[in-house]
Amino acid sequence: MKQVSGGVTAPKGFKASGVHCGVKKGKGDGNQPPMSKMPEVLEGKKDLALIVSEQPCTAAAVYTMNRVKAAPLYVTMDHLENGEAQGIVANSGNANACAPNSHEHAEAMCELAAAATGLKASDFVVASTGVIGRELNLAAIEKGLPAAAAALSRDGSDAAANAIMTTDTVKKEIAVTCTVGGKTVAIGAIAKGSGMIHPNMGTMLCFVTTDCAIAQELLQDALHEIVPRTFNRVTVDGDTSTNDMCVVLANGMAENPLIEWKDDGYTVFYKTLHHVFEQLARAIAADGEGAGKLLTCTVGSARSEESAERLAKAVVGSSLVKAAMFGSDANWGRVLCAMGYSKAPFRPEFVDIAFASAVGEITVCHQGSGVDFDEEAAKSILSQDEVIIRVNLHEGEHAATCWGCDLTYDYVKINGDYRT
Amino acid sequence: MKQVSGGVTAPKGFKASGVHCGVKKGKGDGNQPPMSKMPEVLEGKKDLALIVSEQPCTAAAVYTMNRVKAAPLYVTMDHLENGEAQGIVANSGNANACAPNSHEHAEAMCELAAAATGLKASDFVVASTGVIGRELNLAAIEKGLPAAAAALSRDGSDAAANAIMTTDTVKKEIAVTCTVGGKTVAIGAIAKGSGMIHPNMGTMLCFVTTDCAIAQELLQDALHEIVPRTFNRVTVDGDTSTNDMCVVLANGMAENPLIEWKDDGYTVFYKTLHHVFEQLARAIAADGEGAGKLLTCTVGSARSEESAERLAKAVVGSSLVKAAMFGSDANWGRVLCAMGYSKAPFRPEFVDIAFASAVGEITVCHQGSGVDFDEEAAKSILSQDEVIIRVNLHEGEHAATCWGCDLTYDYVKINGDYRT
Repeated sequence: MKQVSGGVTAPKGFKASGVHCGVKKGKGDGNQPPMSKMPEVLEGKKDLALIVSEQPCTAAAVYTMNRVKAAPLYVTMDHLENGEAQGIVANSGNANACAPNSHEHAEAMCELAAAATGLKASDFVVASTGVIGRELNLAAIEKGLPAAAAALSRDGSDAAANAIMTTDTVKKEIAVTCTVGGKTVAIGAIAKGSGMIHPNMGTMLCFVTTDCAIAQELLQDALHEIVPRTFNRVTVDGDTSTNDMCVVLANGMAENPLIEWKDDGYTVFYKTLHHVFEQLARAIAADGEGAGKLLTCTVGSARSEESAERLAKAVVGSSLVKAAMFGSDANWGRVLCAMGYSKAPFRPEFVDIAFASAVGEITVCHQGSGVDFDEEAAKSILSQDEVIIRVNLHEGEHAATCWGCDLTYDYVKINGDYRT
Repeated sequence: MKQVSGGVTAPKGFKASGVHCGVKKGKGDGNQPPMSKMPEVLEGKKDLALIVSEQPCTAAAVYTMNRVKAAPLYVTMDHLENGEAQGIVANSGNANACAPNSHEHAEAMCELAAAATGLKASDFVVASTGVIGRELNLAAIEKGLPAAAAALSRDGSDAAANAIMTTDTVKKEIAVTCTVGGKTVAIGAIAKGSGMIHPNMGTMLCFVTTDCAIAQELLQDALHEIVPRTFNRVTVDGDTSTNDMCVVLANGMAENPLIEWKDDGYTVFYKTLHHVFEQLARAIAADGEGAGKLLTCTVGSARSEESAERLAKAVVGSSLVKAAMFGSDANWGRVLCAMGYSKAPFRPEFVDIAFASAVGEITVCHQGSGVDFDEEAAKSILSQDEVIIRVNLHEGEHAATCWGCDLTYDYVKINGDYRT
């Protein structure tokens, strides 16, 4: 496995682009009420991304579990019914959800993308992220798509990654190669984090490209197994968006022997995809709204992976734990308390808890009871950019890791204080 | 039903007291490391409460659902096995949980209370709230209990209510009378909120006294029905403490005919107890840590009460909704989004959402889609001390109300920034 540059255009045969079309404009946009305090940073920001493959692709996707699903998800589900696609069109600045004509607009985005690229509307995956409840400015997208198509290039991943950002402060992009059946296979991905955009919710989007030849069913299997162990283990604020989507397009241009079984080739592909998703999951957690640090909670020696995951997720999801981590305060009682209400079975009297980071590790709870520890050393460990909360249940052989971030003044500011 | 003064000493035959014994001292307390920034406000604060009945009482209780339970809960469960008790001893400043000798200390508190009052140790309910993971300063309690017993009085409810406060900013105390079988029956209660105390978690405690004559089984039934509809519908930050407890002592001194069946007398008692709990639940939510306003979410026209409750709880528990309410921002999309991930069934396309407060009501979403509304009017509605989020599912005949508070800078400050 080797990290390479190029993001979604690292795999053979994929081109991408990202342009500003005006959905994010904010001022003078007939679809949105005037917002005197619309941040200037959004002015002219890229808001339309396009990814296209030279060849038809095998496609697989997973969608938000939220009962309220945005229109683009339904359109994408429809287009992927045959397990095939050849392109992705996505906008930021408007979620095209719970708004007038959202289904028609999602369909229209695919038709406009098809017209601009010479493909069919049903070849496209469509995604939106941003404000919900306001009508999408389709005219802006209509104007922008020919420009996006013209800009498609083998260097376009960076522009596409930028065009799907909302409150993300850093671009999420990765590409990795591995060897399958003697051929070099590349997997590239761009993502946007579970940050929220004014005035409503945001989204986790992840677009993955690969030149691997793999059967659709196996690609979908891999997604269904890996997403719950990576993206679904990220908690920024416990809110699940209406627009979350993770899509993989595989065009087979690496010319590896088609992966049709869960053989060695599948294992290599699976591990590489897992690595890609885990890196993006960590990046999304670290870039959670207002986040000052990445929290990683590992629960080990559990009876089952499910219990371990539930416990770890409760810890990184606890507002009290998150606030304590913001203050670099070794409040291990909050960790044990969060585990207690997670509904996962465990024996409190067996539990050891340690805090760790780049500068060291310190045990703060042994067999469910507090131990004396050096508060200054703990503070120094917790003051790092990545803090690990290590829990040992001493009960079994399973483990799980979840990711989150601290709860900061900036989170409250971004999500509450925006217009005041 | 009539509101009266007197709190837990309003019912006949109950005395109460609250004193400072030193658990909360902070400085120079051998059990706790020196804390240079321990707030001065804790100095000399009341930290030991005692409630005693002249006559033996029928007793009923409910406890935290947290798998990690503090020692006093186990001791109380043991003492209430026979359905009887005559007193309550409680301290604040230390949760007596996950700490050395916690079980022995909880037992000792009952023995010391018994020695000071002439009752038996097994007559006592014992509760603690405050720091977890640190050994309780039993010497302070030993010193304080004779003083607390000497201070017992028919005017002592206020002192007791103060003695169980931790980060609460206002005392929670209520008393109400009703008529059962021609006799005036009083129900009094004190509570402390689900605020948290440095450096660990806090607790919801509620101690209820009544002079009603009621069979133990019915008292327990009433508790089991009312607590889920009141206290369990409060969300401050989603964390459930290890020490939560709600106890009712009924001494029968009102001389009403014993309530033995779910007859009219039971209905009156039930409604009165429900009122007491609902008022305290609202007070706890309004006094959530750092809270600036009380949020009430009512979900109506639901298929079942369970669905309605799940939806309402998701709304008041959403960090995004809470932060929006802090900013008085009419982000109804976050309300719909929270409903969507609540796992309760509903039809998004039927949903109406309105925001209301003392100054008016405004519909922001109709049939699952945004409607034009006056942003200034919405802001003015959301700027009040109590904001109601009214959701209509247009699906059935059930409803539920849940309470919470906004997410503020102060919440983060109280829980994260304490020692920095």
